[in-house]
Amino acid sequence: MEFKRIIEEKSKKAWEIYIPHLSIDCVVFGFQDSSLKVLVTKMKENNLWALPGGYVLKTENIKEAANRILHQRTGADNIYLQQFRVFSDLNRSEGFFENFDNTIWNKQRFLSIGFYALVDYSNVNLVIDEISDACEWKAIDELPELMMDHRRIFDKALSTLRKQLNHKPIGYNLLPEKFTMPELQKLYEIILDKKLNRGNFYRKILRYDILIKLDEIRKGGAHKAPDLYQFDVEKFQLALENGFSEGW
Amino acid sequence: MEFKRIIEEKSKKAWEIYIPHLSIDCVVFGFQDSSLKVLVTKMKENNLWALPGGYVLKTENIKEAANRILHQRTGADNIYLQQFRVFSDLNRSEGFFENFDNTIWNKQRFLSIGFYALVDYSNVNLVIDEISDACEWKAIDELPELMMDHRRIFDKALSTLRKQLNHKPIGYNLLPEKFTMPELQKLYEIILDKKLNRGNFYRKILRYDILIKLDEIRKGGAHKAPDLYQFDVEKFQLALENGFSEGW
Repeated sequence: MEFKRIIEEKSKKAWEIYIPHLSIDCVVFGFQDSSLKVLVTKMKENNLWALPGGYVLKTENIKEAANRILHQRTGADNIYLQQFRVFSDLNRSEGFFENFDNTIWNKQRFLSIGFYALVDYSNVNLVIDEISDACEWKAIDELPELMMDHRRIFDKALSTLRKQLNHKPIGYNLLPEKFTMPELQKLYEIILDKKLNRGNFYRKILRYDILIKLDEIRKGGAHKAPDLYQFDVEKFQLALENGFSEGW
Repeated sequence: MEFKRIIEEKSKKAWEIYIPHLSIDCVVFGFQDSSLKVLVTKMKENNLWALPGGYVLKTENIKEAANRILHQRTGADNIYLQQFRVFSDLNRSEGFFENFDNTIWNKQRFLSIGFYALVDYSNVNLVIDEISDACEWKAIDELPELMMDHRRIFDKALSTLRKQLNHKPIGYNLLPEKFTMPELQKLYEIILDKKLNRGNFYRKILRYDILIKLDEIRKGGAHKAPDLYQFDVEKFQLALENGFSEGW
């Protein structure tokens, strides 16, 4: 059995180089075609979908570990990453490997540190690994069933994004450098899970004075070409430090 | 050397019952005499101050571990607890035990999960343990020097409290059941680290409709007896779900 052989072989090495009982799971968000998407991988063996994850080397901190894991998956560097919660229920993962020998790395109890990542969709080149045969973006409202407690990890990441929208540069990291106001509003609506009044949204976001209106418009569109904006990074950072005080 | 003997003896047991490389540190907040305080312990051996902490049993999740650790310290149950961050720098704690044998539990690399706790000051009975000779409340602006990276853990807990003030029942868990409006305002001012205009604060907090004005006044006060309030728990919970949308 190919899958079993690979797991057993990796196990020996894993005991040597990683901190035992500790894993990292990443909820990687990307924004494309007015849709918020999440990166998921499919395991060869059982066709189960999972969040991309890995372990922590004895020689690195957890942020370095998450960066390394995501670089291997996406080819991207300097990804915006935030740890958001530790998942520590008994038997959250170990039951998954019940047909393996008790000494196998993966069969131990694992506490998993959840990170969310925000990436510019266009900068990512997805990579499959030895035990997966797919690595894909899925819209958050069309996620397949996820293995272990990965659905719970995803749910918690999304609710964290919602709470942190006024404190972290979330739009800045998900949108391309230049974007239209309808795109920005759509992103906020998806994260907050509610429709926003167009006029109110424009007024509020412009009052914060964090956007620069560019002297260009989106080319090749259907009919009315919308204005393009980009974030004023300095003003945006300053505004985030206090948090945006107003609701949306 | 008493300290060394105790550590060595506890080490054997620790390897048996706890998950290795993982610790928990708790930033316990209490509010008394218009002052926000934090629980710290002093180690016998070296007179260094530390946050109360411990390890995770192989048979419990991290919230159960934090509850058990705080119960041992304070005698209190049902303490309001929130995990807020994992601290994982290399050599954040292991250097502290350099005079010990390499096999000693405490000398391993530890990643520490930070919890903050909010307790009703009057419900707590502090307990010292074998390796500490003091366990005290200190005002947050009069904290002694803390060992290892405990100052950083405290700083992060406080900034988390600040960001979560509109999303978590922080006032509800820190104040006694009945409190005055000046006490509530003072608590908000300390957590937000800024003076608030009295009239604006009253107007905003009353507009949220989360307080019940009681038919009693604080007895035994100096001159003008202030009105007493308590939280309307149901309305407060409902309001927190959306987050208070307005700034303070």
